[in-house]
Amino acid sequence: MISHERFAAIRAIVLDVDGVLTDGRVGYGAGDFIKFFHYRDGHWLKMARRAGLIVGCLSGRKSAANRARAAELGFDFCREDVHDKLAGFEELLREFGLKAEECLYVGDDLIDMPVMRRAGIAVAVADGVAELDEVADWRLSLPGGHGAMVELVRRLLIEKGLYETQLERYRR
Amino acid sequence: MISHERFAAIRAIVLDVDGVLTDGRVGYGAGDFIKFFHYRDGHWLKMARRAGLIVGCLSGRKSAANRARAAELGFDFCREDVHDKLAGFEELLREFGLKAEECLYVGDDLIDMPVMRRAGIAVAVADGVAELDEVADWRLSLPGGHGAMVELVRRLLIEKGLYETQLERYRR
Amino acid sequence: MISHERFAAIRAIVLDVDGVLTDGRVGYGAGDFIKFFHYRDGHWLKMARRAGLIVGCLSGRKSAANRARAAELGFDFCREDVHDKLAGFEELLREFGLKAEECLYVGDDLIDMPVMRRAGIAVAVADGVAELDEVADWRLSLPGGHGAMVELVRRLLIEKGLYETQLERYRR
Amino acid sequence: MISHERFAAIRAIVLDVDGVLTDGRVGYGAGDFIKFFHYRDGHWLKMARRAGLIVGCLSGRKSAANRARAAELGFDFCREDVHDKLAGFEELLREFGLKAEECLYVGDDLIDMPVMRRAGIAVAVADGVAELDEVADWRLSLPGGHGAMVELVRRLLIEKGLYETQLERYRR
Repeated sequence: MISHERFAAIRAIVLDVDGVLTDGRVGYGAGDFIKFFHYRDGHWLKMARRAGLIVGCLSGRKSAANRARAAELGFDFCREDVHDKLAGFEELLREFGLKAEECLYVGDDLIDMPVMRRAGIAVAVADGVAELDEVADWRLSLPGGHGAMVELVRRLLIEKGLYETQLERYRR
Repeated sequence: MISHERFAAIRAIVLDVDGVLTDGRVGYGAGDFIKFFHYRDGHWLKMARRAGLIVGCLSGRKSAANRARAAELGFDFCREDVHDKLAGFEELLREFGLKAEECLYVGDDLIDMPVMRRAGIAVAVADGVAELDEVADWRLSLPGGHGAMVELVRRLLIEKGLYETQLERYRR
Repeated sequence: MISHERFAAIRAIVLDVDGVLTDGRVGYGAGDFIKFFHYRDGHWLKMARRAGLIVGCLSGRKSAANRARAAELGFDFCREDVHDKLAGFEELLREFGLKAEECLYVGDDLIDMPVMRRAGIAVAVADGVAELDEVADWRLSLPGGHGAMVELVRRLLIEKGLYETQLERYRR
Repeated sequence: MISHERFAAIRAIVLDVDGVLTDGRVGYGAGDFIKFFHYRDGHWLKMARRAGLIVGCLSGRKSAANRARAAELGFDFCREDVHDKLAGFEELLREFGLKAEECLYVGDDLIDMPVMRRAGIAVAVADGVAELDEVADWRLSLPGGHGAMVELVRRLLIEKGLYETQLERYRR
């Protein structure tokens, strides 16, 4: 159970990329690595930004695909090559003037645990490793890369009272 | 329940592309974006055209892959970069001399809602967002990009009394 | 129920490609079309050839990927661009001195129906269109492109008394 | 049931690649063959190496993608083109001064059976062929290429008493 107050405090969505915005699979053999992102994830994350949230990614890897995707979605930040994710997260807080409890973080693997322990709301994708149950407040019903962000953004907007306004433009 | 009369009135199939003809995933890292279309979807949509229906797509994005696929399937139209899908749909109606109730529309995300409210029959793929239930007459049993158009075209041809004639060529 | 006698008569496996050796999906955006074949399908079809069966494909399309895959697996034939599959099948029979009842055919879509009606044993992949039930003797438990040929070859070799000899090399 | 003693004896993880580290599918049409590996598999196999285990692959094929992936994960060995896997395995034992009972092997197809019969612990991925049940001590719950190595490495580290130390770095 995540209290309404904790949702209300959230101002930023911080996302791991591989395994969260992708299904964790990486294709070898076609020049650069191939990764698949999902359009519905993209659309709903853009809607979260339109609703006033800060949205960006914090990845342990360096990847042209990740940067391209982040640029296309207009992410507020795209941190790469972050081997110590907790340090990277603290840096983000300073830079954006955020408190940890104002951030929701989504992860899928062990490397995400320290940030998940620190973030206001810690979310795991459906196929994230079992160890995340130690730190996750919420496990999504979809695995990474298949539209799991829809469920995330929908609930966050509902809890923050921003959902109906966003839906209006589609309800003409 | 969609009445026989509503099916009988349908003269055109208007399709969203990403998430409907594809599974909504887009590959980064191999030059252009990679998208996967399904051969059975293609075959059955061509059969719908052979049976006399107008078939085409109305996409919010601009994509060489979408254009190539539309060309290969002989689509009657391929509208891209349509940010206001309802306006794009009205334009199609004028151009092809169609009434809204003569069009069946298939979508998967919020952006499709206004057209779905207006079209004669509104269809959602199995994995389309939950919000589409407000406007969809029918939710297909397969997700986008995996042959869901087979179910769509089969029922449409049956309701319109065109199925048996089409099947004949395969029943020798 | 397929009688032991019908299995015993089989001398050749004739395969549709797209939707049978692949999952029916085709990737646009990386130069040529991308299709995924499965290694276990390949391995077991090679085993069928080693056991003395004729193995090849009969496709309605023309595709470099299909030819490359057929070459890699040492297929006895690879017919492409065959718009009338029944005519193509009859041609194969003449060329290889086969009778229809000596051929097992695997398909996934309407275009395969006429050959399936004619072949000794007609097989559909799990996700083949429902119409194939009119003509199929057997529906595999796996969809195309995910190893369904393992189930096919295993049963065929068992029924023909060739399975144990083939397995020997792996049972040292 | 695999005894604690057998797990305790394991010093090396020997992996088939196609169908184990990938889902067995191979993409044709984009220059070289395309294969998808999984980041969580990679992360947990690196953790196994950090915990002191020898980790590498033994493949029947020759593939630039496999070599690139092995290099990226810092594998201790990457044997390719090994048509007689048992001979290749014996060679590995000599080279690394290992006994067969100190090796855990993971496979998915018939070609893996002889090594599986010989290795200390023989593991099959969830979608490995049914014949592997003759020789496998353990069938994983996930198919190849989708993070099955997480389950493998977790249990191995737990049984060897190395799990808690590895997890510590993520539990700050």
